[in-house]
Amino acid sequence: MNTATPHPVHLVGAGPGDPELLTLKAIKALRQATVALVDDLVHPGVLKFLRRSARVVHVGKRGGCASTPQAFIERLMVAEAQRGERVVRLKGGDPFVFGRGGEEADALRAAGVPVVVVSGLTAGLAGPAALDLPVTDRRHTRGVVLVTGHTGEGDDLEPDWPALARCGLTLVVYMGVARLGRIVQGLQAGGLPEHTPAAVVCSAHTPRQRQALCTLGELVATVQREGLASPAIVVVGDVVQASPYWAAAPVQQPLQAARQREA
Amino acid sequence: MNTATPHPVHLVGAGPGDPELLTLKAIKALRQATVALVDDLVHPGVLKFLRRSARVVHVGKRGGCASTPQAFIERLMVAEAQRGERVVRLKGGDPFVFGRGGEEADALRAAGVPVVVVSGLTAGLAGPAALDLPVTDRRHTRGVVLVTGHTGEGDDLEPDWPALARCGLTLVVYMGVARLGRIVQGLQAGGLPEHTPAAVVCSAHTPRQRQALCTLGELVATVQREGLASPAIVVVGDVVQASPYWAAAPVQQPLQAARQREA
Repeated sequence: MNTATPHPVHLVGAGPGDPELLTLKAIKALRQATVALVDDLVHPGVLKFLRRSARVVHVGKRGGCASTPQAFIERLMVAEAQRGERVVRLKGGDPFVFGRGGEEADALRAAGVPVVVVSGLTAGLAGPAALDLPVTDRRHTRGVVLVTGHTGEGDDLEPDWPALARCGLTLVVYMGVARLGRIVQGLQAGGLPEHTPAAVVCSAHTPRQRQALCTLGELVATVQREGLASPAIVVVGDVVQASPYWAAAPVQQPLQAARQREA
Repeated sequence: MNTATPHPVHLVGAGPGDPELLTLKAIKALRQATVALVDDLVHPGVLKFLRRSARVVHVGKRGGCASTPQAFIERLMVAEAQRGERVVRLKGGDPFVFGRGGEEADALRAAGVPVVVVSGLTAGLAGPAALDLPVTDRRHTRGVVLVTGHTGEGDDLEPDWPALARCGLTLVVYMGVARLGRIVQGLQAGGLPEHTPAAVVCSAHTPRQRQALCTLGELVATVQREGLASPAIVVVGDVVQASPYWAAAPVQQPLQAARQREA
């Protein structure tokens, strides 16, 4: 089946986990799709909104594991759209927040395939919300920085952790658990005290959700002890205290003590 | 009607505009609500998901206009919940991203009222996506900073614009149009060249959406000439070039010329 102008490919954000965190617009796109190219981090429950006849292609690119090359995914999307299929490219979180959606949109447009972007809830904001953690709370910060700890392609792509420490905003790190020691070191080199509150939330908004709240100085040891692993979001900044989970964290006492010493 | 433990108050993010950008979880909360406290920036179409019998209270706090004091909103939520109502607090965007959701959650918990947070798409990410602008595109940046230009309470709460200019990330400013001159000045003082690409999108994902893409140096004049006004999102950074709207922007030529002079 060939069509003059292909149907637009929908780059759809599946949100952080819980299928109830999909948008109506995402669900409409799923219901119309004949082919879905699905990332690893998409919750399987999201696929229930596809037609039974829809073809599902899993194209995971999970850090460190065997993966589908980006160029292959892009060629596949173009080919399916040019064959007349209604293609949904389903990505965890938001396709435009560390999702390579920009590159995929470019590849589609370059091939003459129209693109529709359907934003999804990104784990860097919805993950902390699963801990009732308001990342931009004006009592603690002026805003939030979203960066990724997984650059995959050399140190020139790594965020400048000391500079980020100095900008005084809440820091949210995607895929930071594997390089946590290096990140904490960089933040401390930039002047963040070791008693700065921090949180890690893994698999947020899924039944497997786990979290830990502690000080920056305790972060690496806590993550190792608790066996917290990817996919995880790390939050660093005073605002972590605004989470009601903070009061229950075993390591809040060192913070209080440090503050009293400073006062 | 009194109940022993009040129903939880749902702090619900209504997203950036288009009611189709609500999550299923938000829609479920709306369908169960008997009382809805609604912010100005919530799209009227969102209210269609409420029961006909639900009582709607508009409690806008729009910058510069007559507004409902925050303490009144908090007391009202507590009182309605304690009377046994199922309360939804409906906020534009995400309740935990510049939404005072943290303060409202604290007030509710302090009064013994349970809280459920339902994240929504924040305008700072979904707004740029309406321009097909991938704010964290790895070909241009390591991440994105979300800050607000409207602090409302003194300069000590203003973001450190020069420091933000130096951190090398895409900058997204909420409510920045009213103080745009000051913001641009601060970013240039921090070293951002005047040919840095920038975008403004107003009322994203609504029929009234308008936008402009230009250089940082042209930003204030462009916003004035085009009459762009709040609610607006300002994006500053090289990644703006990744938007297909950039190629159509009248002021891209100065950027090319500046780059050629530099090369």
